[in-house]
Amino acid sequence: MTWERRKRARFVNSLSGFKSATLIGTYDSEFGSNLSIVSSVVHLGSTPPMMGFVLRPPGKDAHTYKNIKKTGICTFNHVNDRIIEQAHQTSARYPRETSEFEEVGLTPAWIDGWMAPSVEESRVKMGLTLIDDIELANGCRFMTCEVNWFDVESIGLCEDGFVDLNQLGGVTISGLDGYHGTPKIFRLSYAKTNLELKKMLNFDDGWDDNTDNGHN
Amino acid sequence: MTWERRKRARFVNSLSGFKSATLIGTYDSEFGSNLSIVSSVVHLGSTPPMMGFVLRPPGKDAHTYKNIKKTGICTFNHVNDRIIEQAHQTSARYPRETSEFEEVGLTPAWIDGWMAPSVEESRVKMGLTLIDDIELANGCRFMTCEVNWFDVESIGLCEDGFVDLNQLGGVTISGLDGYHGTPKIFRLSYAKTNLELKKMLNFDDGWDDNTDNGHN
Repeated sequence: MTWERRKRARFVNSLSGFKSATLIGTYDSEFGSNLSIVSSVVHLGSTPPMMGFVLRPPGKDAHTYKNIKKTGICTFNHVNDRIIEQAHQTSARYPRETSEFEEVGLTPAWIDGWMAPSVEESRVKMGLTLIDDIELANGCRFMTCEVNWFDVESIGLCEDGFVDLNQLGGVTISGLDGYHGTPKIFRLSYAKTNLELKKMLNFDDGWDDNTDNGHN
Repeated sequence: MTWERRKRARFVNSLSGFKSATLIGTYDSEFGSNLSIVSSVVHLGSTPPMMGFVLRPPGKDAHTYKNIKKTGICTFNHVNDRIIEQAHQTSARYPRETSEFEEVGLTPAWIDGWMAPSVEESRVKMGLTLIDDIELANGCRFMTCEVNWFDVESIGLCEDGFVDLNQLGGVTISGLDGYHGTPKIFRLSYAKTNLELKKMLNFDDGWDDNTDNGHN
């Protein structure tokens, strides 16, 4: 607790382990498009498909928060190894009327009249609707959303539903500013009390749901 | 929406990107120790140090949920590349009176009378107190906790507060059952509107907080 603020933030941000790297795209009719990197996206459920993410206590900037509250929608776009620096640069404090897309050099992609831009260079994109905006004990917000559409490059999609995010150049974040590759180790079969785990080394072999492996 | 349930679960679980791999240790005075892998731990704040994680809607099993509600405490233990299979196996449905530590072959470590076991083989462990138990729209719970103590192997601790989780054998999860290594790409300096990003290839060089880089 006696550490200097920045050192402390780096340390505590490391303690949660590896994180997703996601660009959130939003739009405001007055101020235009916004794009912001977050490392706090978590899976909440499959039926309906739900995800959540954490935002700092909304202050005067909080462009992502304000835009989502106003429009009720956003996009998630996975960061891959070709766009790490552009993605990281979105965290600079640009004025609200500035488009991070232009500033960092990413391409907005508008899909089917969805009023929030996705990222052309991202290989896993989706559109979401806000469900709840929950205030946490420290003033942060936990935003829960439903996935309404997705666009996943087909090369990453395995027969059994698994998406090979490593094949799609996916990266993971540690701490505030560490970026890591994601080489495959193995997939493991659904754990049962009376069965040995099976390893799958080739991720797109997939589990056979007609046997009892990989059951969820 | 027409995909078979397991295929669908695999797919949607992949869409949130890479996830932390954490073993949660809890204790019940009647049923003993419990250990359970989760992939939903997220950072919530540094002051005080706060984290959150998602649990399924509490059903008749829900041993982790019941134990935390009763004792108010738990431990987080990062999964590393030497204990992936043991960690995964904790997700099997063992009876409540069975200790997952014994079943999967991990060693409970009891620290300073903290009434929840940590995992000896883990290289980043911490003890946490429950702050809030929040019910989400789909019945899942978002549990928020404060970090009360930690134990990080010193080889991973960098001068500027960053923890080199890759150096400590850290792994990341994709989908329901994919495990990935985490080789370092680079750390990036704090983003500013008027500055080029700097790359740090050797993660423990650290940022100099007396210059304006790596500022948070």
